[in-house]
Amino acid sequence: MTEDTQLKLWQERLDISPFQRWLGLRAESAGEGEIEISLLWREELVSNPANKSMHGGILASVIDLGGLYAVLTTKSAAVATVDLRVDYHRPVSAGQLRAVSKVLRLGTKVSSAETTVFDDGGRLVASGRGVYLMG
Amino acid sequence: MTEDTQLKLWQERLDISPFQRWLGLRAESAGEGEIEISLLWREELVSNPANKSMHGGILASVIDLGGLYAVLTTKSAAVATVDLRVDYHRPVSAGQLRAVSKVLRLGTKVSSAETTVFDDGGRLVASGRGVYLMG
Amino acid sequence: MTEDTQLKLWQERLDISPFQRWLGLRAESAGEGEIEISLLWREELVSNPANKSMHGGILASVIDLGGLYAVLTTKSAAVATVDLRVDYHRPVSAGQLRAVSKVLRLGTKVSSAETTVFDDGGRLVASGRGVYLMG
Amino acid sequence: MTEDTQLKLWQERLDISPFQRWLGLRAESAGEGEIEISLLWREELVSNPANKSMHGGILASVIDLGGLYAVLTTKSAAVATVDLRVDYHRPVSAGQLRAVSKVLRLGTKVSSAETTVFDDGGRLVASGRGVYLMG
Repeated sequence: MTEDTQLKLWQERLDISPFQRWLGLRAESAGEGEIEISLLWREELVSNPANKSMHGGILASVIDLGGLYAVLTTKSAAVATVDLRVDYHRPVSAGQLRAVSKVLRLGTKVSSAETTVFDDGGRLVASGRGVYLMG
Repeated sequence: MTEDTQLKLWQERLDISPFQRWLGLRAESAGEGEIEISLLWREELVSNPANKSMHGGILASVIDLGGLYAVLTTKSAAVATVDLRVDYHRPVSAGQLRAVSKVLRLGTKVSSAETTVFDDGGRLVASGRGVYLMG
Repeated sequence: MTEDTQLKLWQERLDISPFQRWLGLRAESAGEGEIEISLLWREELVSNPANKSMHGGILASVIDLGGLYAVLTTKSAAVATVDLRVDYHRPVSAGQLRAVSKVLRLGTKVSSAETTVFDDGGRLVASGRGVYLMG
Repeated sequence: MTEDTQLKLWQERLDISPFQRWLGLRAESAGEGEIEISLLWREELVSNPANKSMHGGILASVIDLGGLYAVLTTKSAAVATVDLRVDYHRPVSAGQLRAVSKVLRLGTKVSSAETTVFDDGGRLVASGRGVYLMG
């Protein structure tokens, strides 16, 4: 499978979820145990209209799903999130976000992954971890 | 201020955020240090269309914002989420969710709050905590 | 089995662990899905000798093990901690701590439990959650 | 100040705490925003004597204090842990552990740091994050 075909496949898998379609995610790259997903800031994703900062829930969503898809790249079947932890480092008020997700540990019952989110200036915006139940 | 006037006020404050309007949140009750917010399951909020389960990011969003508003009920100015932790207990595929948020500890620099989310059968769906930066 | 016999049993199970013996834990009460354990402040447990405050690692230990034993009270076999989250609410510089641990959710692969730690004035000192791998 | 003098200083600062002395920590290296600390497995640190695995509370302690000292290397005054999250990846039953701690984000009110713990085979044992209150 070419890299382009693979990315198209991950895009389709991201787009299975109605909420993920609404977020407007884009699969940027994928490898064994890691995936990079991008997301564009837009008005609807805003928490505080005074400073136009993106809602913490959107960043949490990206960290949750990014980690899950990182586990999926290993051909393991992760079926649900057990728990999620997010650190918010800097507000985002414009531009494209890039979420880099990597498997920390693959297990038979649970697996864990870490996601780091950067703004379009390459600055750390949010980061966190999920633990996922294996199927 | 009557209870109804107060609830209307919290509803307005919830609706300031475009993302929170999209979620369709409803302020159900509010007191010193606690707030109850409801949310209706709908197709757009789904993660996995096979079982119609609500996306973990939606539940994380509700826990993040519920805790923030619980801190706001104390007339303290919480300005941003420092970190968020979510436990997923059971998938939700229909009905109304009820999120009960309570302040754990008020501080001058940071405060913490806990949110518990129930489905319309009163079963525990998700729960978690946020730490919030004070203004 | 009388309540006393049961408590003696939990005390023995706590004391299997060399580190737990060193901590000087005491099983105070136990029921289906919950356990209460106490711990005395002492010089060796201190982080900062300037204010004699107990080390955060000691409180994290109590929250980790309290949750595990809460799961064990259900006769389920929890074999290891998957992850642990701790909130620190107030420093402790003297007296007896009381840790109340309750199961949040029992599962076949993982279970979760919450522990709340109080000082001898009944004030909230620390609280947190663990997710445990089931045997 | 030579590197040796600096390490001696960090060792002294680690040894201020009675609990940290008991743990037997050793400052291995330190730079701006990061510190490496080692710890030897010993019987007293064990949770389960059946497999001699180190107690999760010990690993949580190392992640808590490692992150705090990483913040201190920036000459910022971190005064207390706000919250702590730990992922357990693999049991440790022998040898020397190496904890590498790095600042994630320095703030005026709170800062965050991440710590990764390896066994003497270089395998990931535990990792996690703390948020620290600034003085």
